[in-house]
Amino acid sequence: MSKGLLIVFSGPSGTGKGTVLSAYFAKHPEAQFSVSATTRKPRPGEQDGREYYFVSREKFMQMKQNNELLESAEYCGNCYGTPRAPIEKALKDGKDVFLDIEVQGGAQIRRLLPESVGVFILPPSIQVLGERLRGRETEAEEVVENRLTAARREIPKAAEYDYAVVNDTVEKAAENLAAIVTAEKHKTSRNQALIERVLNHD
Amino acid sequence: MSKGLLIVFSGPSGTGKGTVLSAYFAKHPEAQFSVSATTRKPRPGEQDGREYYFVSREKFMQMKQNNELLESAEYCGNCYGTPRAPIEKALKDGKDVFLDIEVQGGAQIRRLLPESVGVFILPPSIQVLGERLRGRETEAEEVVENRLTAARREIPKAAEYDYAVVNDTVEKAAENLAAIVTAEKHKTSRNQALIERVLNHD
Repeated sequence: MSKGLLIVFSGPSGTGKGTVLSAYFAKHPEAQFSVSATTRKPRPGEQDGREYYFVSREKFMQMKQNNELLESAEYCGNCYGTPRAPIEKALKDGKDVFLDIEVQGGAQIRRLLPESVGVFILPPSIQVLGERLRGRETEAEEVVENRLTAARREIPKAAEYDYAVVNDTVEKAAENLAAIVTAEKHKTSRNQALIERVLNHD
Repeated sequence: MSKGLLIVFSGPSGTGKGTVLSAYFAKHPEAQFSVSATTRKPRPGEQDGREYYFVSREKFMQMKQNNELLESAEYCGNCYGTPRAPIEKALKDGKDVFLDIEVQGGAQIRRLLPESVGVFILPPSIQVLGERLRGRETEAEEVVENRLTAARREIPKAAEYDYAVVNDTVEKAAENLAAIVTAEKHKTSRNQALIERVLNHD
């Protein structure tokens, strides 16, 4: 069995990363989603091991010291990190693992694991992103403006990723993501053993 | 409109390159097939501009001197070459162009046009390739043996290509080829303008 792929998936808030991933997972139930560890408290409805692994600050620091996290960062006084062991196990078992991560953490992972595949999801335009964020209606205009400013700063980082997918429609974006995964599995750089096998199974 | 992709498509004789391409073209009628120029005489049923551009040796040499061929080679006393102009026009018009070419010519093209995509098609095994060649029944055993020897020599060259696709079933191989084309179009290295466009259309 060949090793799974690690897909580092980033994009500005509001671009629909989660929705695209859900559409992808619906058609590829064997794929895995990497669950982050965090020191922030669970919100109502959140479940340990599903949205996050909820851990104490002491436990988090211990994980970090034991090199159990691929990357970690602190936001608004809470720590977030990517546990290494579940990813390594899934990849070894031939499962593809998707990591929904902001650009800085994504860059750390990709330096550490250069065989990972970086996919950046883009809104059709900043204007459409603004319309989508305002359409949610739950967001104050100030929050929308902050997110658009963040998006303008993050989008140029797409160039550091291997692939860019525009989320025009969720279905099309998920299909393009599937094509990227399929193509990457056919890279000769990942298939040296295949060439040997074709030659020697005779 | 974005530029088309040039796909350099190689693989041992008998692997089913032509059949896989036909299945691909049936679903992607906008794609183009690069027709080679040759000095060999047309065989019954062959049509100028379809299988080959049939030209005189004098005309061929003139094309070569005028830098109208991307690559050329001589086999069994006949010259073969890849005309440059139709490929450049199709790519400029946003059409993908497929070039069915042996490994040496493929290497020349890929050096000249590093933005091209190299896809190598593999038989499931040398044994299966032998069975397929023998199944044609039109081939003498000696011809089959020569082709298998050539295949053993060519298959390691797959490593010099970007992708390797095993022709287990024609349909699956054509689907994988389609995924490769889709993925390549989403490479950030081909989409710098897209990132600019997303940022500035607001």
